[in-house]
Parts: sequence; structure tokens; C-alpha cells
Amino acid sequence: MQFTLGLLDIDKTHYSPVYLQIANGIIGHIQQGKLKPATPLPSSRMLAVALNVHRNTVVAAYDELYAQSWVDVFPRKGIFVAANLPDVSSRPIPTTVRLDGYPEKTYFEIDENRVPPADFFKEIAGQNLHINTGMPDTRLAPIELMVREYRRFAGHHFTHKYLKYGPEQGSLNLRTELARFLGESRGLQVTANDILITKGAQMAIYLAAQVLLSKNDIVIAGDPGYAGANEIFEHAGAKLELVPVDEQGMDIDAVEEICKRKKVKLLFVIPHHHQPTTVTLSSDRRMQLLELAKKYRFAIIEDDYDYDFHYSSTPILPLASADYYGSVVYVGSFCKTIAPGIRIGFMIAPKNLITQATRLRRLIDRQGEQLLEEAVANLLKNGDIGRHLKKANKIYHERRDIFCRLLHEKLGDKVSFKIPDGGFAIWIKLLTGINPTELADKTEGMGLTITDCGDYFYNATSQPPYMRLGFASLNAQEIEQAVEIIARAIDKLS
Amino acid sequence: MQFTLGLLDIDKTHYSPVYLQIANGIIGHIQQGKLKPATPLPSSRMLAVALNVHRNTVVAAYDELYAQSWVDVFPRKGIFVAANLPDVSSRPIPTTVRLDGYPEKTYFEIDENRVPPADFFKEIAGQNLHINTGMPDTRLAPIELMVREYRRFAGHHFTHKYLKYGPEQGSLNLRTELARFLGESRGLQVTANDILITKGAQMAIYLAAQVLLSKNDIVIAGDPGYAGANEIFEHAGAKLELVPVDEQGMDIDAVEEICKRKKVKLLFVIPHHHQPTTVTLSSDRRMQLLELAKKYRFAIIEDDYDYDFHYSSTPILPLASADYYGSVVYVGSFCKTIAPGIRIGFMIAPKNLITQATRLRRLIDRQGEQLLEEAVANLLKNGDIGRHLKKANKIYHERRDIFCRLLHEKLGDKVSFKIPDGGFAIWIKLLTGINPTELADKTEGMGLTITDCGDYFYNATSQPPYMRLGFASLNAQEIEQAVEIIARAIDKLS
Repeated sequence: MQFTLGLLDIDKTHYSPVYLQIANGIIGHIQQGKLKPATPLPSSRMLAVALNVHRNTVVAAYDELYAQSWVDVFPRKGIFVAANLPDVSSRPIPTTVRLDGYPEKTYFEIDENRVPPADFFKEIAGQNLHINTGMPDTRLAPIELMVREYRRFAGHHFTHKYLKYGPEQGSLNLRTELARFLGESRGLQVTANDILITKGAQMAIYLAAQVLLSKNDIVIAGDPGYAGANEIFEHAGAKLELVPVDEQGMDIDAVEEICKRKKVKLLFVIPHHHQPTTVTLSSDRRMQLLELAKKYRFAIIEDDYDYDFHYSSTPILPLASADYYGSVVYVGSFCKTIAPGIRIGFMIAPKNLITQATRLRRLIDRQGEQLLEEAVANLLKNGDIGRHLKKANKIYHERRDIFCRLLHEKLGDKVSFKIPDGGFAIWIKLLTGINPTELADKTEGMGLTITDCGDYFYNATSQPPYMRLGFASLNAQEIEQAVEIIARAIDKLS
Repeated sequence: MQFTLGLLDIDKTHYSPVYLQIANGIIGHIQQGKLKPATPLPSSRMLAVALNVHRNTVVAAYDELYAQSWVDVFPRKGIFVAANLPDVSSRPIPTTVRLDGYPEKTYFEIDENRVPPADFFKEIAGQNLHINTGMPDTRLAPIELMVREYRRFAGHHFTHKYLKYGPEQGSLNLRTELARFLGESRGLQVTANDILITKGAQMAIYLAAQVLLSKNDIVIAGDPGYAGANEIFEHAGAKLELVPVDEQGMDIDAVEEICKRKKVKLLFVIPHHHQPTTVTLSSDRRMQLLELAKKYRFAIIEDDYDYDFHYSSTPILPLASADYYGSVVYVGSFCKTIAPGIRIGFMIAPKNLITQATRLRRLIDRQGEQLLEEAVANLLKNGDIGRHLKKANKIYHERRDIFCRLLHEKLGDKVSFKIPDGGFAIWIKLLTGINPTELADKTEGMGLTITDCGDYFYNATSQPPYMRLGFASLNAQEIEQAVEIIARAIDKLS
């Protein structure tokens, strides 16, 4: 193939020098095989005219190519793609790492069927309504407050402090404000030193698991339960022991049975609104659980990611507020408070664990986003978060009531459910023998995408007739439409 | 102790209901021992008047306390802190996790002397000038561009898309723009699918290490070298083999000697401006290294975090651009391009490794900051990053020249160094027998803080007479003052 100008795409405004763009462009085409060995290249004068650059620029490019052995130069003949190139087949990124043993080694020993489906977080096509697994409504997210804080940063010289490397444990301002907030909202008596700021509750669970667990350690979790945490424990090499979850939450007698037989290292619990069933762990069981943790010396990860969203009755204070022994690692998040895409979470734990987790955090990503952490600290300090929560709780409370009323009215004989005290979702049981996946497939074509089916949360191999339906991200009118579609879909399937 | 009103701090604007604030306040004081068992509490009427709240609010608070067994109620006598409380010593967070074997188990088996000193990233007290290990000048950070993007987000409904959960592999817009940018600047032919967006180069190295390494695998790195990466490999259970670094970079013959004796799994290299010595790995050694990787089937992590900052001669294209075999994991960062506090990095690797690393990333923190990723994508797309790099390179180039000229003029007989081709620091050798730590201690009291001493980068137990002095974050005048102080300090110590 001849050299043609079309091969070169020069951008004079680009920060990379033009001569280098020319050289790299030609190298790229040699590597891709578009320019074969020994192909003549145009003279520097011709190319300069054609590209509308100074001739010296092309000379510099050719010098570069020569220095890197991509071209041969023959006096009075001209310049040619080198006859003997290194191994220059085209270089798209190879599809496999060729390490001894690597392709065979399955790093993640995960049953693909237990991994969230690829469309778990998919964008919803077209105009379909979307019932997710229980997410806040991003239309209510106080993004304008976040932006206000970022604008403030732009005008202040102190901002430069936050553009440097910062504390691995997280912004001191944020930890200080958070300690106050957690005391007022949850009765937790903590100081800034007891807190590690993370990227969502997810990272807090990951860090705790990595620090606490060794290979083959036993971890207890609920069934059904939060598969995202279970994956973390299995990845850390632990063995899961699952206990049933009933209408008072995790079955603590079943926990004790396991403790009697085996050395348990860790227990994972979402006591406030259990994921996925939304049930609250009763006070009695909480005390029983803390006693067991003390007796059998296991750690508890208390995931309290949606404590701030509670609509009926009094929220029960966290296990962590009654832990006098040092068993509890308390994990929380602002991802639901502001928006899932705003990744701020935290871990509260005894100091030796915070120290170890902070060290691991430094290895993973050094630190969080300081500007984001400072922005959230300001929003906490001036009460914006509190006001937003008040407003959002009112709206979600209403949406929960509308959703439950309509489910009852339109589907009363086809589903059963308990009204959740808080959170973003209803856990419903299909009474009609209809398979949840079939139902979701049916509604998909009728204008309603239901992303999450209950089976993801279950350890069972057969599909249980449960679905977790998020109500919080739909407004009243959308809820009405959604329930209407579900009702019609069930009719068609029955 | 009597109940006194001063114990209660009620905030009516707080989102948490007032009755719950009262209840939690009282619980807190019981837990801390400020209110002893059987202490009488004021009547609901009295407390309501004192707190200026409706009496029913106090009644609700007392009901809550009763329900949680914190108080005893005796008809006609009143309400008292419960005589028999659960184990209610005060609850600051316990200092240790009491797990069998846990406090004894040192999770991080790290020699404390090899960990960055506590003040590695410290704020500099008072008016001291600061020579860091080689950071960009945050005063030049294009924060106003970032804020402009965030302001745009506030005005657009599409923003809500980025507030939901998003792709674990990172923003598709960012990956697409990055692929173009990397092609133009580095001759890398990659697509969006080949890229995983991370939090800084740090997370890319962590993910690659976790995915590639098993316990006792051998990893080769340079000595002196980047201790932050070595820690990651040791944390993954690998054994380090260190090879010397000379004026052409890592000694590849020494690498081959190790390969002949042992099965090597991974090699870590910063070929462009080696950390800490700033030397560039020569072309010959690059080809030799790629051949070795192919022959002995080890992986290479190529950390190219400051490729975009190069002042003299031509930057040599990355190893990754000549890797036809699938040996190279290419790691880069925008943390130096925008600011260290803006955590965006990336990994480019064969697809099976990207898939595995993306899965692990999902376990760790689910995803990156979508708004930040979209902002950086826009800055790349409209050329802002390119313009900023052009401007910053010019400034840092000047600062490097000034620093080197002054070191030569003022300290020519006391230090030796090579002018680096790029990056943010000079690697100097003290010729006068002065210990770097002593020098830093001396300058500290004279108005100049030098955070980083060369020994952090060395495996040696004795202190080598090297220092890594960052020039980029000081302007011309500050550089002059800093060199002046160093010169006077050396005089005093000689």
C-alpha cells in the first residue's frame, strides 16, 4: 500500500507536539500493517506542504522514526518504512494474559448464576417505567447543593489544600460532622477518630472482611440476604453459613446452633431493614445476638445503610450503640442520602480495626475524593442533609403508602406482603404460582422493566416466588401505572 | 447525679424527631454514667416547659425509654432511670476488637520503618516553604474547569443518569475519550473496552496485583523503587526480588539472572521517569524486557503515571505500545494532570485481566464517581486537558531549569544530580557526607520543610545519601529561597 495523506490526522491545538503526532501516526500505521516494510514515504518537503506544517517539523518526525528504527534512509533515494521491522503485527490489546497458569486460574470462584445479571444496573430502554431493587429517586437528589459547594471551592484559595494528597482516614471535617450527626440520629457516641470514611458501605464491608477474615473462616449471614456482601466474604476465602430470616429478622437461635458446632469468625446483619425482606431485627434478638458475639467471640458487621429512611414507628438504635464489648463494626452510607452515584460511606469500629482498615485503604486507592468529602461535611454542618432527609422521608413515606394501598387494592388476592417500616422497597410474595422471572419478562413488553428478581438474594437453587420491588424512585402517577401493568401481566399469565 | 437540663441538647430543625432526640440524649447520659440507676427524671410537664416543647413530645420520649427498658415508671411516684440496667458503662468505641486470635494477628506484616512517615503528606506548619517528593503545583490545578463542568451538570436533567449506579468499568464517555487521547499522545491503539477506570494509578496496581498474584509468587521491582507498589505486592503475599537501577533504568540483565533461577510472575517498572531516580529506561532495555517477558511468561505492570510531563527530548512510547504478546498491564493517572486530590486513574490490559479486575473493583467500591468521570471526559473531549498540559509543561520545564541551575550554582560542589527529562523532582546525591535526615531536620527550623528523604525508596538498611526534591510545586522565587536555605543548612552541618 502506498502512503496516503488520509492516514495522518494532525491536530495543531493538541498539547502533543505536531512532529510527534506525525511520527506516532506513521508508527501506528506501520504497526497495523497499513504501511508495509520498504514502502517509500514522501519527502519531508512534500509532506510539509501537504500537511501545512513547517518542513522542519516533518524532518523532526522522520528523525524520530529513524531513531526508533521504524524507517530506513538511503541518501539520494529517500526514506522508506524499514525493511526489517520488529514484530509489528497490529496491536489491538491482546485478549488474554499469557502467563503460565493464568488463564486456567479462575481468580473469582463465583458461580456465574449468583452474580448480579448483566442488566442489574442497566439503563432502561425507551419509555419503560422502571422498578428497581430499592433505590432513592435521583430526581430528588440535592445535586444543586453539591454544586453550590463545588462553586464555593472554586472561589477559595484554601481549596488547594484539598487538591493535594490528604488523610487516608477521610476528611477530618467530615468525620467531625458525621460524629455529631450519628450521635443525634442514632445515639452513637463516637469521635472523628473512630470513623473511617469509605467509598460507600461496599468498601467498608470489603475492608472489614479483608482485615478480619482468613481462608476458611466461618461467616454467618441471612438467607435470603445481601448477595453483594456474601460475595465479599467468599472472595476473602471465608465459608458461608446461612441462617433463616423470619418476620423478626435473622434467626438468632440458629446462629447459636452454629456457634456450638463451629468456630464462627464473623456475622453479617442488616438489622434495620433486612435486605431483601425489609424486616427489622427485634430488640430481643438484638440483645441475644450481642450476648452471643461476646460469648463466642465473633465480630458483627452491622450494615445500617438505610437507617435514615424510616417512616413508621421508632427506629431501633443500632447494635453498635449497645456494644460494650467491641464486637460490632458499624457500616453506613450517604449513597442513599444524596444519590447512589455519590460514593460516601463510613465504618465505625474499635481503633485497632480502624487502623488496619485505614492501612489497607491506603494500599487500594490512597484516599477518598477530598472535595466531595468536604462538600458533604459542609452539607452536614449547615443542616442541608438533615433538611433533605426530612423532605425525602416525607415523600418516600407517601410513595410507600400509595404503593402498598394499590398493591392491596389491585393485587390483594395475588400477592402478600408486609408494609416495611422504612427503606425503599416492598418484599412481595406471588401467591398465584407465577414465576417472578416470567412476570418480569411479561411486564418488560408492557412498558415496565423490573430489574430485580428475588432469586438473586436466595441461596436456594429453585426460584422462590418473591420479588423485591423498589417504590421510592417512582412518583405517585408512575406507581399507579406500574401496579396497573403488573396486575394486567399477572392476569395474562394466570 | 441529679438530672439537669444542661444534659439535653435539642435541635428542632434537625431531621430526627425531637422526641427521639430527647430519648437518645437521655440514653446517652445513662450509658456514660452521668445518670445513675434509680435517678428520678423530671415529670413530662416540667421537662416540656423547660425544653419549650409540647408535653406530648416528652411523653413520647419517655414511652420510648420505657419500651427500650431504660426507665422504670411507678404510678404516682414518677419516672426513674431503671434500677437494673443492661451493662451500661459509657460507650466510647472500644479500643480493640476482641476476637480470638485477632489482636495477635498482625494483618499488615509491614516493617513500620518502611511505611511512609506519618508526616509524609502532612500539612506544612506556619510559613515554611515545602519541598515534597514531586507533586504538581495545586495552584495551577484547573479547578475552575472542573467546577464549570459540575455547574453544567446541575442544569441538565441527564445528570440524574449519573447519580444512579453506573458501569463498574467506568464512564463509557471517559473511556472513549481516553482511548483517543492515549492514541494521540502515546501511540496506544486501544478501545474503550480495553480500559478500566480506577481511583488513581494506585488502585490499578492494587487490582492487577490481587488478580495476578498468589501467595509466594515472585515479583521483580527496582531498587531504589516505588515503595507504594512494593507494599501492594507484599500485601498480596508475593516475594520481592529487587534489581539495581542505573542510569539507563532497571538492570534487565539482572532480571534475566533471576528468571533463570526462579519462576517470576510479575515485574513492576516505571520506565518513563523511574521513581525515585527519574531515569528513563533506554529503548534497548525496553525491547530486551519485552523479550524476557515473552520468553519467561511473566507479566509487566508498566506504571506510566507522569508520561504527560516531559520537557526535553522525545518521550519514548510506552512498553505497552510494543507489546504484541499480552504481557503488559499499562497503568496511568490523571492525578498529576489535574491534582493529586482528583482521583482518576486507569488500567489497560488484555481483556481477561480487565474482566477480572473489573469484578474485583465491583466488590471493593462498586464503581467510581460518575460525575467526576463525566467531567474529566468533557475536559478531554473539548481539549481543556490538552491545553492545561501544554501550559503546565511549559511552567514545570522552566521550574526544572531554574532549580537545576541554582543547585549547580549554589551547591555545585556539594551535590550531584542528572537533569531529569520530565516529571516533578530531582534526584540528588549529597557529596559532603551529610545525612539527608539531618539536612531535613536542619532546614525545618530555617523555613523549609523537606518531607521526603531518599531512604524511603531504598531497600537498604543504611541511609543512602540521596534525596528526591520536588521542584514543580514551587515558583521561581520560592525555588530560589529553598535552594538558599539548603545551601545555608549544608554549611552549618559541614
